[in-house]
Amino acid sequence: MSKLSKTNTTSCKAEFGPNYKEVKIGDIIILAQDKPLKLDCGQQVSSFPMAYKTYGKLNEEKSNAILICHGLTGDQYLIGTHPVTRKPGWWEDVVGEGKILDTNKYFIICSNVIGGCMGSWGPKCINPKTKKPYNMDFPVVTISDMVRAQKLLIEYFGIKRLFAVIGGSMGGMLTLEWAAKYPECVYAAVPIATAARHTAQNIAFHEIGRQAIKADPDWHGGNYASKRLLPSKGLAVGRMMAHITYLSESGLARKFGRGLQDKEHITYGFDTDFQVESYLLHQGRSFVNRFDPNSYLYITKAMDYFDLDADYGGMLANAFKNTKTRFCVISFSSDWLFPTSESKHIVHALNASVARVSFVEVVTDKGHDAFLLDEPEFWQTLDGFIKGIAKQMGF
Amino acid sequence: MSKLSKTNTTSCKAEFGPNYKEVKIGDIIILAQDKPLKLDCGQQVSSFPMAYKTYGKLNEEKSNAILICHGLTGDQYLIGTHPVTRKPGWWEDVVGEGKILDTNKYFIICSNVIGGCMGSWGPKCINPKTKKPYNMDFPVVTISDMVRAQKLLIEYFGIKRLFAVIGGSMGGMLTLEWAAKYPECVYAAVPIATAARHTAQNIAFHEIGRQAIKADPDWHGGNYASKRLLPSKGLAVGRMMAHITYLSESGLARKFGRGLQDKEHITYGFDTDFQVESYLLHQGRSFVNRFDPNSYLYITKAMDYFDLDADYGGMLANAFKNTKTRFCVISFSSDWLFPTSESKHIVHALNASVARVSFVEVVTDKGHDAFLLDEPEFWQTLDGFIKGIAKQMGF
Repeated sequence: MSKLSKTNTTSCKAEFGPNYKEVKIGDIIILAQDKPLKLDCGQQVSSFPMAYKTYGKLNEEKSNAILICHGLTGDQYLIGTHPVTRKPGWWEDVVGEGKILDTNKYFIICSNVIGGCMGSWGPKCINPKTKKPYNMDFPVVTISDMVRAQKLLIEYFGIKRLFAVIGGSMGGMLTLEWAAKYPECVYAAVPIATAARHTAQNIAFHEIGRQAIKADPDWHGGNYASKRLLPSKGLAVGRMMAHITYLSESGLARKFGRGLQDKEHITYGFDTDFQVESYLLHQGRSFVNRFDPNSYLYITKAMDYFDLDADYGGMLANAFKNTKTRFCVISFSSDWLFPTSESKHIVHALNASVARVSFVEVVTDKGHDAFLLDEPEFWQTLDGFIKGIAKQMGF
Repeated sequence: MSKLSKTNTTSCKAEFGPNYKEVKIGDIIILAQDKPLKLDCGQQVSSFPMAYKTYGKLNEEKSNAILICHGLTGDQYLIGTHPVTRKPGWWEDVVGEGKILDTNKYFIICSNVIGGCMGSWGPKCINPKTKKPYNMDFPVVTISDMVRAQKLLIEYFGIKRLFAVIGGSMGGMLTLEWAAKYPECVYAAVPIATAARHTAQNIAFHEIGRQAIKADPDWHGGNYASKRLLPSKGLAVGRMMAHITYLSESGLARKFGRGLQDKEHITYGFDTDFQVESYLLHQGRSFVNRFDPNSYLYITKAMDYFDLDADYGGMLANAFKNTKTRFCVISFSSDWLFPTSESKHIVHALNASVARVSFVEVVTDKGHDAFLLDEPEFWQTLDGFIKGIAKQMGF
């Protein structure tokens, strides 16, 4: 096990938005100080920052820890005021005192993935070789690398087995990777709105997001920060496109339809006519103030590379051979980015592995983002599963 | 009826790609010379070019004319070598001697829509007031405007009734508009893979394409041509995104899956890893050599504005009241851009109008673009319908 130490200083500053405001981002630990972390690309790193938040208290037996894995553009701020956006955390509905993931009962850990931009080792960090930020010299990391980095964090806390690993979207990929690589460390796993391998269509959407960023001349081959620039237009275009894929056609129709924005008639011009246009523009604009464009390139690439089937000889069931982990696989009926068929593929593999698995498809028009939204049937499903396994564990 | 004259000179040059090669684009006519065309935006134009191609011969009774309406980025080159791309026309499979739309039997007309960039009145044309290209001073045109311009062209040929109006995607919108506004001029109508109003999701996709173009600094507020520039990166990003929407997830999975491009292993880098990435990049690159970015802005806007329901008091059936036109509505099972539900909405309205209507959903994994691809069931459907109405007409 690596020697680990907690620190308040880090070589990776969190700077955001066009004004490059520096932000205090909570706990940061330097991992892999004496035993390097080997990355799938062949490189290794012997000392890297990992930013995380914890909620609740670890019990004496260290048996009440839940690891929550965030999605592509998420971070460790599950609850409480986000230091950059000043908005509430992304899972306020689910995590907290008396909530489904009750912080009075559980010790909740959420860490920023490596490759990210909220304090963990990522493209903005200083490359010790050059004493400059890595930018595009940062190694291409994988979902597996992200999980191995998280494992070091879990070891730092002295936790041998997580009560649960839970995650939606990319977080679901990390959850599956955890269950496959460290089955003895995962009592229960909840992969939500996810897939065991990224589809051609999803790779295509990601590639266009990357192209949009790289097409912005302010990107400067990834070296925008040293020029006090930000490829904000390209990043906004990428985000707007991705945002459509997080929703559903029926949800958009219900929410906006062909409604006009602050006007009674179409303008016969190129300013915003429709509410849906205004909504997307807002999504694009607010995103560039909180997310690093190079991180977006790296994390989308990690998702594209994810292929748990291929890692286990083209047979996903092999990933879960003899697993004792309890699974609850959840999908959303209107999610066309990670459709129910992808969750069923996971469930079939788990069945073939004779794993303990529940599967629920939540009927909703909220699309892929349903796990972040007001979706009571989803909450009931998660609540029921967590209560069930808590009973087994004697909590 | 307007005085009309055929001309070889035009104030609207067709210039393409980064090298601004001028291209001869076939027949151009100057329409509305003595009676202005009133546009929905309130402006009017008294003399404008309309570029078109015809195939086959008009019979003496002028009863064998078929108008084909092209899609968003299509043009009048149904068959034969395209003057810009040097590739075959976009409907070689359907139009020609002995083909479904037999040029030995029918007089096929296809005109570039106004707002377009293949010779018809569009943003590249000279604004008579300023003696400079309109660029973004071009008026915002609608599907209805496009059809009224086509009507003038049909009048020029002396055609009182078209044997058929046929079109896919945006061409289907024009087809519906023709049938609604000029029912006495349309013996048969074939709207393919289309909708009576553009959905919120489709407006969203279009808005992102427009944002991608406008985010490119080479766009220069639409005045790129005078600077000998082209916002090619922005246009390519817009095209790549749109191209995904023209295909289906299952089609992409079948065609590319997670296959790698010219390599055996992933590269852990940002060059092209996957075949689907390479394919999309090619689509983006080749598009910028043939399509004008400002035209893309205008034509997508025209589609976004299309709402035949709203034009008829929110009751689509009113659009087809007492119609005698024979309809054949065709959709594709894997088309998620213009899903079968949109075609059914049209069919229900036609049923409510007691119109003669056939409806076929072709089962395919080729997505929205199926009408442009090798899709025998679609061809059989179109062939059967055309043969049936030809028999009624005594052809």
